[in-house]
Amino acid sequence: MKIFFAGSIRGGRGMLPVYIQIIDMLKRQGHTVVSEHVASVELEEIEARISDEEIFNNDIGYIDECECLVADVTIPSIGVGYEIGYAVSKCKHVICIYSRDSNVSAMVRGNKRIVSVPYMGMEELENIFTLP
Amino acid sequence: MKIFFAGSIRGGRGMLPVYIQIIDMLKRQGHTVVSEHVASVELEEIEARISDEEIFNNDIGYIDECECLVADVTIPSIGVGYEIGYAVSKCKHVICIYSRDSNVSAMVRGNKRIVSVPYMGMEELENIFTLP
Repeated sequence: MKIFFAGSIRGGRGMLPVYIQIIDMLKRQGHTVVSEHVASVELEEIEARISDEEIFNNDIGYIDECECLVADVTIPSIGVGYEIGYAVSKCKHVICIYSRDSNVSAMVRGNKRIVSVPYMGMEELENIFTLP
Repeated sequence: MKIFFAGSIRGGRGMLPVYIQIIDMLKRQGHTVVSEHVASVELEEIEARISDEEIFNNDIGYIDECECLVADVTIPSIGVGYEIGYAVSKCKHVICIYSRDSNVSAMVRGNKRIVSVPYMGMEELENIFTLP
């Protein structure tokens, strides 16, 4: 399945090692992740060279070509929230995952069009992503 | 004008005094703010008594009945990002304001369907909100 992975960029990069693992896991399961840049350690450097409008257009274009958006919502992020809202409006399959101890938005947890799943470690995540 | 004001709740309440001032200002200018609860000091207590699904349905219902969404995007927040994405998908007038020193998402700054305006203090904000 073609998947857009969404994770915090300007909201904070504290979960980067987890994002890298999630993308690796999705790829190992045979999925195509179109947004590998989200887990790049050089992302801020790359983004500094292009305009916000280019970043926006690229990301929206990537989401449009996917069937599914997987977002890690552990770290609060305006961009990730926007991408989730956009994907839902485009009737994409949306899965939000979050570290079990985080305080997740009601706009995610209370939303019937989103599958939201807490996780403790990568092992639990492996079980979540038995996507079709 | 009927306005939904969006501000961080579970992302962090550090800007609450500013949210209160923004809502007061919008009301003084003759607008109706349907989401005054966002700036309530008792919000967490109130929300603890209702389900995430009720919160989601209430907020989406409020946005639907508004012409305009004003979001303070200074504090990263999944919920605020979601509401912005939803409002844009419903062709609402969307204005994002942010403290001048914050690192705002490219999904807001690079989005031609959003008016985004930095501010330094309330005086600058008063000038932004000369809405029709």
